[in-house]
Amino acid sequence: MAFLQNWTPMLAIKPDRLLADLEGFAGIGADPQGGITRLAYGEADLQARRRFVEQAEAAGLTPRTDAVGNIFARRAGRGGDLAPVGFGSHLDSVPNGGRFDGPLGVLAALEVVRSLNDAGMVTRRPIDVICFAAEESGRFGLGTLGSKALVGRLTPGMLASLRDPQGRALGQVLRDCGYDPDRLDQARLRPGDYHAYLELHLEQGAVLESRGLPVGIVTGIAAPTRYRVTYTGRADHSGATPMDLRKDALVAAAELVLAVRQLTVTHGNPTTVGTVGLLRVQPGAMNVIPGEVMLGIDIRDIEAEGKRRVAGQVRAAAERIARDSGLAVAVEPLTDDAPVPLPDRIRRISAAACRARGIPCVELPSGAGHDAMYMAEVTEVGMLFTRCREGISHNPAEYVSPEDVIAGATALAETALRLAEE
Amino acid sequence: MAFLQNWTPMLAIKPDRLLADLEGFAGIGADPQGGITRLAYGEADLQARRRFVEQAEAAGLTPRTDAVGNIFARRAGRGGDLAPVGFGSHLDSVPNGGRFDGPLGVLAALEVVRSLNDAGMVTRRPIDVICFAAEESGRFGLGTLGSKALVGRLTPGMLASLRDPQGRALGQVLRDCGYDPDRLDQARLRPGDYHAYLELHLEQGAVLESRGLPVGIVTGIAAPTRYRVTYTGRADHSGATPMDLRKDALVAAAELVLAVRQLTVTHGNPTTVGTVGLLRVQPGAMNVIPGEVMLGIDIRDIEAEGKRRVAGQVRAAAERIARDSGLAVAVEPLTDDAPVPLPDRIRRISAAACRARGIPCVELPSGAGHDAMYMAEVTEVGMLFTRCREGISHNPAEYVSPEDVIAGATALAETALRLAEE
Repeated sequence: MAFLQNWTPMLAIKPDRLLADLEGFAGIGADPQGGITRLAYGEADLQARRRFVEQAEAAGLTPRTDAVGNIFARRAGRGGDLAPVGFGSHLDSVPNGGRFDGPLGVLAALEVVRSLNDAGMVTRRPIDVICFAAEESGRFGLGTLGSKALVGRLTPGMLASLRDPQGRALGQVLRDCGYDPDRLDQARLRPGDYHAYLELHLEQGAVLESRGLPVGIVTGIAAPTRYRVTYTGRADHSGATPMDLRKDALVAAAELVLAVRQLTVTHGNPTTVGTVGLLRVQPGAMNVIPGEVMLGIDIRDIEAEGKRRVAGQVRAAAERIARDSGLAVAVEPLTDDAPVPLPDRIRRISAAACRARGIPCVELPSGAGHDAMYMAEVTEVGMLFTRCREGISHNPAEYVSPEDVIAGATALAETALRLAEE
Repeated sequence: MAFLQNWTPMLAIKPDRLLADLEGFAGIGADPQGGITRLAYGEADLQARRRFVEQAEAAGLTPRTDAVGNIFARRAGRGGDLAPVGFGSHLDSVPNGGRFDGPLGVLAALEVVRSLNDAGMVTRRPIDVICFAAEESGRFGLGTLGSKALVGRLTPGMLASLRDPQGRALGQVLRDCGYDPDRLDQARLRPGDYHAYLELHLEQGAVLESRGLPVGIVTGIAAPTRYRVTYTGRADHSGATPMDLRKDALVAAAELVLAVRQLTVTHGNPTTVGTVGLLRVQPGAMNVIPGEVMLGIDIRDIEAEGKRRVAGQVRAAAERIARDSGLAVAVEPLTDDAPVPLPDRIRRISAAACRARGIPCVELPSGAGHDAMYMAEVTEVGMLFTRCREGISHNPAEYVSPEDVIAGATALAETALRLAEE
């Protein structure tokens, strides 16, 4: 922690307290194989959220939960009813994911509040530690549900149409958790409700590691364009159907998997990424030619035009492959969000905060989506990244060193303090 | 049924009785979508087998069940303890399969016995109607388990190692059904135990339909060579991992799916078929690059050398793809059976039987595997096919016309009668 020794002790994050918190939350939903599974609104997710509420209350905060389960834990300011500064992230995870994606931002924000308490400091503006609901798409095929609700992008229709793999509708799941999806409207934020929103997250990429830097200041957030593509062929006997009489949905799907990669590399920007993360085969037996295959495709860029270009090519390829092989195809758009540039003003404040604390940093784009994208529709948003090992995330091997956790939390604290005094 | 009018009424199959039987069994394990799911040793399979035992007893047969659930229902002959003629098939199905694959052979054999009863005929040799256990591979990834047990190819080790998708071992499943896998040895047949074995099955291919013929006499049975291939890459975040830093197991798997098809077409015989019927993606989320993909590959031919050539090329391709993409790969051989030629002698008897009854027929190979393959290790075997619509099987749309069911059952009856009088 060499560079830590040069820091001005303005607000002293307690490393052991924050690291112990991260360790504690990593035990909730722990898989036998070493990962963490806290699917949105599942038992482990709810348990993590209950623990967050307890810890927020212990830190003197006043938590409020909205219609879809977003939690806002407030610390009053000295300036009356000024708009607060919000900061946080999420506690749900992908299946078999890591311990930092989400909890790092929530628990660092909580630690900033506890450090303010320790120092007896009261900021001019109120501070909200925010825990967003259902950031990951693992359960309902669509993520950032909590922050979407805040800006009216989660509709009553989606409460019925979004279903988990067991067929349970989002609305029913919310009711079963004790939330009140009928009051979805009341969850909406208006411009001016927040002075600013900040989020600390691990990079989920390898740029900071490759440059040897602990912290990054995010210039913009790449948003996904997603399709569900379903090929329908014919489920014939694999032994008795000559190769030239087949309608094999998996062969078509395999061509599309390779096309997604090829089209991304040849028609995208260097920052464009295209992934098939989901592929399901029906009926799925050794001796049956696949009759139906569903693919889930995710295309991202921080630059809208490059993403649009690749997405169009992928759609065209999906349909051309079906035509060439005599199969039926359905291409369903699931998400098509615009990349979100983050404002210079907050980036400059974060840069000044890092300089003041001697934390080396660099500006970089975010390839992953975050709740901050939607908060940007109603307030000024800043994001900070910590370095993560080998760029690995959504994986049990996800790792941020203790030094980088503290550097990130300190950069977050200093940025939040500056904004809360405005 | 024009050709039926020219038949000599030697043994009168009752069409309505057999067709009603097929209809009745189609109701056991019926899916809401119209197919049939009677996975080996599952509740629906056991229910079908109980009904078979009841019907066999009602027809005066004496059923015996062996250590793995094969059922042998005997009708005594007039010639004392001569070796019997066996005929039958299986009652289990693939997931969401059709109503003819298996039951046609079992129920036609039962109908032959009832027709013998009606006519007051007693054959010289005893007759066994056989219902083999676990012919389909849908549950344990390996099929013809019952007939394998008869020839010592189902080992005690496999009772522990073969597991269904819920992780239940075959041995335990057998015990739960009330069978006695500890007495596996006693299930074995010796050469001479049977005088001959006959099986009637739908073609599961389109040769008979394309030639306008109701019945086929099988020249040989293609046996599968099967591999389980697992690619292991790295489950990174799909948004934050540049294309050139990925270890995407699904991209490798897609290349192998296309290679299986390409290598089969270019290096196989016209009769060689290669299929990837099973492909599972881990972790399987829209925003995670697939870290692990398992493929199930099935390669078949009635000619051993063509199959060996393609299988070798597929293995080499699986490993080359892993090398080229920097992934780990495991290639596990699951099955490697030799194609089984069927003897001229029984084929000639079937041809004579068809001629005597005015049933047009042709010789053709079987692309699908059957229990008859293993019976061929201990006795002379004959197989008859009925035409099936569009060659479709392992699918709810599987269909054999009532006329073809009766033509097939009549050809079976006449062949069985001739063999039982030897």
